[in-house]
Amino acid sequence: MEAYFDNSATTKVFDCVRDVVVKTMTEDYGNPSAKHNKGLEAERYVRRAAAVIAETLKVSEKEIVFTSGGSESNNMALIGGAMAARRTGNHIIASSIEHPSVSNPLEFLREEGFEITYLPVNRLGKVDPDRLRESIRPETVLVSVMYVNNEVGTVEPIEEIGGIIKQTNPRTLFHVDAIQAYGKYEIRPRRQKIDLLSASAHKFHGPKGVGFLYIGDRVKIRPLIYGGGQQRNLRSGTENVPGIAGMGAAAREIYTDHKEKVEYLYGLKEYAQARLSEIEGVTLNNPPGREGAPQIISASFAGVRSEVLLHALEERGVYVSSGSACSSNHPGVSRSLKEVGVSRELLDSTLRFSFGLFNTREEIDYAAETLKEILPVLRRFRRN
Amino acid sequence: MEAYFDNSATTKVFDCVRDVVVKTMTEDYGNPSAKHNKGLEAERYVRRAAAVIAETLKVSEKEIVFTSGGSESNNMALIGGAMAARRTGNHIIASSIEHPSVSNPLEFLREEGFEITYLPVNRLGKVDPDRLRESIRPETVLVSVMYVNNEVGTVEPIEEIGGIIKQTNPRTLFHVDAIQAYGKYEIRPRRQKIDLLSASAHKFHGPKGVGFLYIGDRVKIRPLIYGGGQQRNLRSGTENVPGIAGMGAAAREIYTDHKEKVEYLYGLKEYAQARLSEIEGVTLNNPPGREGAPQIISASFAGVRSEVLLHALEERGVYVSSGSACSSNHPGVSRSLKEVGVSRELLDSTLRFSFGLFNTREEIDYAAETLKEILPVLRRFRRN
Repeated sequence: MEAYFDNSATTKVFDCVRDVVVKTMTEDYGNPSAKHNKGLEAERYVRRAAAVIAETLKVSEKEIVFTSGGSESNNMALIGGAMAARRTGNHIIASSIEHPSVSNPLEFLREEGFEITYLPVNRLGKVDPDRLRESIRPETVLVSVMYVNNEVGTVEPIEEIGGIIKQTNPRTLFHVDAIQAYGKYEIRPRRQKIDLLSASAHKFHGPKGVGFLYIGDRVKIRPLIYGGGQQRNLRSGTENVPGIAGMGAAAREIYTDHKEKVEYLYGLKEYAQARLSEIEGVTLNNPPGREGAPQIISASFAGVRSEVLLHALEERGVYVSSGSACSSNHPGVSRSLKEVGVSRELLDSTLRFSFGLFNTREEIDYAAETLKEILPVLRRFRRN
Repeated sequence: MEAYFDNSATTKVFDCVRDVVVKTMTEDYGNPSAKHNKGLEAERYVRRAAAVIAETLKVSEKEIVFTSGGSESNNMALIGGAMAARRTGNHIIASSIEHPSVSNPLEFLREEGFEITYLPVNRLGKVDPDRLRESIRPETVLVSVMYVNNEVGTVEPIEEIGGIIKQTNPRTLFHVDAIQAYGKYEIRPRRQKIDLLSASAHKFHGPKGVGFLYIGDRVKIRPLIYGGGQQRNLRSGTENVPGIAGMGAAAREIYTDHKEKVEYLYGLKEYAQARLSEIEGVTLNNPPGREGAPQIISASFAGVRSEVLLHALEERGVYVSSGSACSSNHPGVSRSLKEVGVSRELLDSTLRFSFGLFNTREEIDYAAETLKEILPVLRRFRRN
């Protein structure tokens, strides 16, 4: 049996995604900038995807810009947003548990003369609204807070944060990295006072290499990529029609009967939590119950190194992640886990189980039984 | 019948590309950063593509960085290269017929304090080596010259230019936009003294949304996209495995029996030129014979507006381009056509026919017959 529980790293695509990707690579393969029918046809795929995504957010399709993925979206929002606002101020605020595709562009901006304030989070991984309010200054151009933390599944109080920002400094832009949230939540940028919102298709059963950035209609940003002027000059380059059409198909699919789909994920998560609790020496680090995201469990296994357990599991066909796959090129201890107070001796014994719509309870049973079998062996081995 | 002659705008993918894209979206869909087998498997696709592409250029696979396409590659090379060399100097040279994905990043760099010199070209669209030599200064950090012009098919004397640059100022980087050249020529960055070389998969029957940048091993550039540190920190973001694997498959296919493939394209081009010459009032603007690229014909049709002719042709299933599709969001007269001396009254009567490996002589016959039929009608209509 195989159990792929690394859906927060990446997912298998939906069948409808595969079909439209193939169709736009082999039949409707025109360049959207071309003036003939094959170009118009390609452009229609792009527009349809923009309309679908805009509808899921209740925004205008003109506010959707297609990118090559979550990292580009985050870079474009932060570097583009900060550079465009440079004359207004040079201060940026972010939570201390942002993904590297947020924190590293911020470090670049620091070298460019911006001052960055990182807000600590509480034991549940949440930003403190009061600390945020106190940190906002007249020269604060940008606040960036992720919607769902990729390592522990914390859901930030986005609407409250948006309100605080706009009350304190209406000119401050609010960027939300929604890469782990899009497809799991009903996101409403207007109500939540979000100016910029990043998403990545391959986290919600769409293709890799494509994402989007929501840019509110009054928000000014500097492009990251200049050229032929596609996408209203905001993001040049021939549109990745298969990727964009595939992302549109995934967005439509995931937001159809959406509550049932989210319930299905919560069902898997709760079932997995119950099964993990049967096992000795397991601590869950994700926020309890429905406080956390539906797809993420962070579990520490006392007395076993996560890497050893990860490889023992993969030998049995169970795929999980240690730390965050997105930064596994940088081994080292997870910042998010430390921030949410995982005890020092468990930091290196922690695995993430992340679920997708293709997972089943049978797979969870299989993983639980496998853990029960191999954990005592690994623990004994370690003690000797 | 259908005749798609807009292959310099974009191409249909090879069957082998479609197959590997589907496989990596539905079966081998791991994240290359993941530590388990599914991650390693995905990473192998990425490495194999890098090895294939490196082999086609006779460079090391470590010198290949994957991007989201030609525009990102050009932006990364120019902005990244110039910013990394900022302390050395602030002067950049480019030809006057570069694609907007080169000229627009250069205009951005101008705002950032760089001085840009645009070199004029002769009637064949070629950069004058002497003018180039005179323009290089101690503070010249970068020279950018395209390999093949996208509108008229001029092939620049890249090896000569590379030699002149390195003789005059060994610290000056040489960037080559090879977006219309990769797959058509045997490119040898080391011999040609190229430091940075951009390519885009969808121009050679690979997928849209993916390209590469060759970065010579001693060349320093600043990243454009920061994050999880993928691709040796040069280009963060989960690798677009299906796109990269698809590009690798396309590169392998196009450089297998490569001479025969290029001969096939030249055969199509020469046949099309002969058939076009039968028609009254047709002027060819592309360099004669094998001086020009194998896939591009630029033809002016006296007495007809290109847009009118383009739409009349598409009604009969013949797809061509007016100006360059990559910048057709910016209507207006082509700079390349003006630079190569297309007469004023023909500027707006010019179409590009660009060939790919799926085209046939029968399609050319069909297009020629169609032109013979509709041109007199359109010309008569205009005179009235």
